[in-house]
Amino acid sequence: MTTPSGWDAWLAAEAAARDEAGLTRRLVPRKADDPTIDLAGNDYLGLSRHPDVVAGAVAAARAFGGGAGASRLVTGTLTIHAELERALADYTGQPEALVFSTGYHANLSIVTALADRTAYVVSDAHVHASLVDAVRLSRAALEIVPHSDVTAVREALARADGRPTLVLAESVYSVLGDEAPLVELAAACEEYGALLVVDEAHGLGVHGPGVVHRLGLAGLPHVVVTATLSKSLGSQGGAVLGSPALVEHLVNRARPFIFDTGLAPAAAGAALAALELLRGDPALPGVVRRRVTDLAAALGVEPPAGAVLSVPMASPQVALAAQGAVLEQGVRVGCFRPPSVPDGVSRLRITSSAGPSDEDWARAVEVLVAVVKEFRP
Amino acid sequence: MTTPSGWDAWLAAEAAARDEAGLTRRLVPRKADDPTIDLAGNDYLGLSRHPDVVAGAVAAARAFGGGAGASRLVTGTLTIHAELERALADYTGQPEALVFSTGYHANLSIVTALADRTAYVVSDAHVHASLVDAVRLSRAALEIVPHSDVTAVREALARADGRPTLVLAESVYSVLGDEAPLVELAAACEEYGALLVVDEAHGLGVHGPGVVHRLGLAGLPHVVVTATLSKSLGSQGGAVLGSPALVEHLVNRARPFIFDTGLAPAAAGAALAALELLRGDPALPGVVRRRVTDLAAALGVEPPAGAVLSVPMASPQVALAAQGAVLEQGVRVGCFRPPSVPDGVSRLRITSSAGPSDEDWARAVEVLVAVVKEFRP
Repeated sequence: MTTPSGWDAWLAAEAAARDEAGLTRRLVPRKADDPTIDLAGNDYLGLSRHPDVVAGAVAAARAFGGGAGASRLVTGTLTIHAELERALADYTGQPEALVFSTGYHANLSIVTALADRTAYVVSDAHVHASLVDAVRLSRAALEIVPHSDVTAVREALARADGRPTLVLAESVYSVLGDEAPLVELAAACEEYGALLVVDEAHGLGVHGPGVVHRLGLAGLPHVVVTATLSKSLGSQGGAVLGSPALVEHLVNRARPFIFDTGLAPAAAGAALAALELLRGDPALPGVVRRRVTDLAAALGVEPPAGAVLSVPMASPQVALAAQGAVLEQGVRVGCFRPPSVPDGVSRLRITSSAGPSDEDWARAVEVLVAVVKEFRP
Repeated sequence: MTTPSGWDAWLAAEAAARDEAGLTRRLVPRKADDPTIDLAGNDYLGLSRHPDVVAGAVAAARAFGGGAGASRLVTGTLTIHAELERALADYTGQPEALVFSTGYHANLSIVTALADRTAYVVSDAHVHASLVDAVRLSRAALEIVPHSDVTAVREALARADGRPTLVLAESVYSVLGDEAPLVELAAACEEYGALLVVDEAHGLGVHGPGVVHRLGLAGLPHVVVTATLSKSLGSQGGAVLGSPALVEHLVNRARPFIFDTGLAPAAAGAALAALELLRGDPALPGVVRRRVTDLAAALGVEPPAGAVLSVPMASPQVALAAQGAVLEQGVRVGCFRPPSVPDGVSRLRITSSAGPSDEDWARAVEVLVAVVKEFRP
């Protein structure tokens, strides 16, 4: 073809619009021996590179091979999946766990296997894209309520009108780093016969067994938890934590579980080793929480509930410039710009992590304090 | 709570209905040293346990850690992702590749990043659940056409009425094992300005660089390919193969790419090693194709285009009994029952694979011939 098709022209127009808005993103590959101090990712406890976690991945690949080879329902359930599910449930104080190949699939699955177009979903305005997509996919009636507004949730629940109802929240929100009012949400759900779905992506690990566990909500029949293996557990994959009846239902009805290859053995082995480390060293989550509190004080911002510190900047351009200045000094932080932010505010996103050595951490704090002072006077 | 909530009662009722219909599935964990000959999975070339593939997983985990640590757009793009994307594109004769954490995400991404509610999607009736969910998520107008019916596709395209249009097909369909009329579909798409999306999940590897490549369709601007790393490549993950403009669009717009952690290093390393094996041994795909042809002749059924042989059985119960009889003799085959079959017909699903030794393969054929004769007289 010598003339562009409609699709080619459309792609070109979309790219030009992105470029003009300064929103084009490109992938920058990171080398295995990259010396930059990484405060941009989600490896909150620094476990991805922990020798035991790597050894867990290696042993599982050697024992089971490079892939699970099939859907979990065919021959893709391996004993290491069962072990991981038992360990996840035990650690978080839940009756059972079901592991998925990504956290995205855990969220797609819990919502779509429970809710169809006859259902009603009340969603916090800041929940993760995977929960937003899950509701779209389910065709349920959706009411988005203002962020962490329990009164608004109750008002929405009062309009459920007998429909099967889910309430969606995260324990710790990614971008702003704040904790949800889970006790109040759970009480509202119990009162109205709704099921509270809590995404612990940013809570598990940073808060040990998770915020749901800390608040005494683990194992309640009206509270179900989803989690990821790719953040604090340093691996890949996701999980739903809840009752045996719920897990059996997902096994039989969740399309992103049924029609997907099981999680790769190495990922299961890495996550299992990370859980063993966490069980063996209950002080580990305290390291990252102390670091984030200290950093917040040094930067003069509010300490977050999770490991991620959000520093609002004046514009996408200023945020990018600050990020570049930090990187020049060997520290990588994130830069969140529209459309990845729930409130339209561009910001530096600084991940505290137990990963860097005390020396590297001190250097990173010094760099961050100087740059934030320069770019956010 | 002592009385069951509405959700508990609903889960119990759903479980009872499944049990009564004989459709309840349970997960059966497979041990690392399971001696059963596995003809149920999708490890078509037996590469998942190949020493080089395992070594690829091990080396990547050691170099990069247990997980990618972040979204691909933040710091979760590793040099091994870039290497894998180059190798995939080169092997399949495509300009570029983009890797996802599952094949499901590759399919969700290509459809939702291109199509919204103003778009029009013409889908073959037998495409994979992930493509069906992708269209639901996109909100595009959907027309499902009878399986591999090019005339019906053309009639549907004639009703596109200027809307941006996708046509969805697989190169080799999973359950029936038949090949799509891709040359005719591509010609129709070119004529009507539509984009043909071909899922090569069951074609890549079994047909070397894929059916699209064999037919001379690779790299055409109106043909885009999705693939999985979890079948012939013995790993986990998915990919989209197409133009640089398309890949850049996905990087910037595909929510299941943007809001997901990058593929785990070990999975990328395993897939990369599998691709190197395939490039180094172009005869490997011939092994599985010969085996499936021989087995089809022995069972008196039509040889499929892919590696999966479908043997229709009289009922779900008969299919299950035959599967059990085969398993008693040390051979595991799949059993597909509603709702996992596009035509409602229960069947044995036998995967030919280059994995088993010649001796094991001969024994498996003997067992299968005897059991099929008994249960399908």
